[in-house]
Amino acid sequence: MTLPSEVSATRLLVRPALREAVDTLDPAMRRIVSYHLGWTDEHGAAVEGGGGKALRPALALLAAQAVRARPETALAGAVAVELVHNFSLLHDDVMDGDTERRHRPTVWALFGTPAAILAGDALLTLAVEVLEATGLLSAGRYLTRAVRRLIEGQTADIDFERRALVGVEECLHMEDGKTAALMACAAELGALLGGGDDASVAALGRFGRNLGMGFQLVDDLLGIVGSPEVTGKPVLADLRVRKKSVPVAVALNSGTDSALALREFYRREDAPSEDDVRTMAALVDDTGAIAWTRDRAHRYIAEAEASLAAVDPPSDIRAALVDLTRFVVERDR
Amino acid sequence: MTLPSEVSATRLLVRPALREAVDTLDPAMRRIVSYHLGWTDEHGAAVEGGGGKALRPALALLAAQAVRARPETALAGAVAVELVHNFSLLHDDVMDGDTERRHRPTVWALFGTPAAILAGDALLTLAVEVLEATGLLSAGRYLTRAVRRLIEGQTADIDFERRALVGVEECLHMEDGKTAALMACAAELGALLGGGDDASVAALGRFGRNLGMGFQLVDDLLGIVGSPEVTGKPVLADLRVRKKSVPVAVALNSGTDSALALREFYRREDAPSEDDVRTMAALVDDTGAIAWTRDRAHRYIAEAEASLAAVDPPSDIRAALVDLTRFVVERDR
Repeated sequence: MTLPSEVSATRLLVRPALREAVDTLDPAMRRIVSYHLGWTDEHGAAVEGGGGKALRPALALLAAQAVRARPETALAGAVAVELVHNFSLLHDDVMDGDTERRHRPTVWALFGTPAAILAGDALLTLAVEVLEATGLLSAGRYLTRAVRRLIEGQTADIDFERRALVGVEECLHMEDGKTAALMACAAELGALLGGGDDASVAALGRFGRNLGMGFQLVDDLLGIVGSPEVTGKPVLADLRVRKKSVPVAVALNSGTDSALALREFYRREDAPSEDDVRTMAALVDDTGAIAWTRDRAHRYIAEAEASLAAVDPPSDIRAALVDLTRFVVERDR
Repeated sequence: MTLPSEVSATRLLVRPALREAVDTLDPAMRRIVSYHLGWTDEHGAAVEGGGGKALRPALALLAAQAVRARPETALAGAVAVELVHNFSLLHDDVMDGDTERRHRPTVWALFGTPAAILAGDALLTLAVEVLEATGLLSAGRYLTRAVRRLIEGQTADIDFERRALVGVEECLHMEDGKTAALMACAAELGALLGGGDDASVAALGRFGRNLGMGFQLVDDLLGIVGSPEVTGKPVLADLRVRKKSVPVAVALNSGTDSALALREFYRREDAPSEDDVRTMAALVDDTGAIAWTRDRAHRYIAEAEASLAAVDPPSDIRAALVDLTRFVVERDR
């Protein structure tokens, strides 16, 4: 399962705009950010390819096209959400102590914690500046609202780690903040900058939010059943640090014998062994939480597609948006 | 030496507005921020007094009054700069590993590093939101420009720690970013929100920038010659971690025998002993760097006062602004 060609194509448009924004940072910061974005190696030498999936910028440009504007009109929105996404990755890696991302050392592991904190701060500020340059106050408001939800989601995520139990609904709300809010914002900004009316902006926002929830639930599943060679993440990393993602919350609250056994593993304070994490993954599956989560992801995706009815995008753009939803649930990385 | 009464008075005005902004954060975050701001203790119980000097908000309100507006007109600016200041304190304490601030445990020391990083992120975002609510796009631009300089200054500050030598000019530029840029912004926002014309906004910005430089140089001096009982900071903390503040840069570049001896101390990698840091402080003084820095601080302050000529504030407001400059250079904490 590869990215829809429309998504890959938007990268060609977004990359130069993103680079233009990053080039305004001072040289020391630019070096760190370029490494983080996968543009350069640790010595500052250019790297071919690299970078993440760039789903959020693609969503912004497609949303502009959905309201029948040229994709270029939404570039500032695409750049802003990608910067915010990377701000959150930089700080997340420090908070989680993760030493690898996309098969490379994380920024804090390579350049130190202060560098990673400051680079995150710089990207958040740069995102706000990029939208200020559009002259559209409402664009900034969509962004800060999403960043606020993002921070709330991350706060809840970390809070969950020290709690014995977490409800399924509050866990879904956490993931709405951590992931779906910025996806919604990407689509909202694209539609807004593309000149869409309020109803279209709201409908595309719903598309982005539901797509984001589907994306995050699949991410949770890959953290339990994914192959590390494919995902680039350490095997069962989420279970190892006792993260309470949605499938785990569903499993813990399932009232089954496996749930009780899983609660025991989650109650312990010591680092789980390799055998432990494999057992934990099996217990999650036993409760039916994997199937539940997969089903729920498909429902979010169906909801995303349904929200397009209020927009009436050109047929090729509708097809690209639908492709995107399919990619999100069927991906293996 | 106590704060001018006009500064203390502005706190009464700013505190409710600041609290109103902080109250929009989710409960978990609000608890951490309230502790950081000195409003509550670690259990969430209200604390009398507390909080910092609130110089930046005072500057914003005085700048509005300097252009003959009521201080209330500048409240959003006052709140925004205080939020940004506290964003930077929260992240600085993590980056520097400081466990105490204002005689209390720092947020990361008490609630963990993730909480401190997220609280900083939340305050930065909240500051942008507070200015978005004014409906004035240019207000946001003044703020993000200052935050960008603030991050550049902190990046340079950390970069300096791993370098053997730092020039005096680049060190002054670092402190302009780390401290003066936000002071300039406080005055600019006050004047802007107070309806001042471009010339007044610029002149009050120069006042804030020069006041900020004077403030920071005195801070550097207190980090070398200040009494820890009064400043609330560990004795000679800056020298202990080999920070290259302006007096240290001046001393290292003085071409004296003491400079050579000081360079040796700065070249070593081990933690300096108590005797070492006392010797380092004496060496800085021997080079004449303390006197040089004190003189330079007075020149910035004179420059700040001179910039008021282009504004023509009401006489009581001029007097309060001048009082503020005197406080900044004569304070002992």
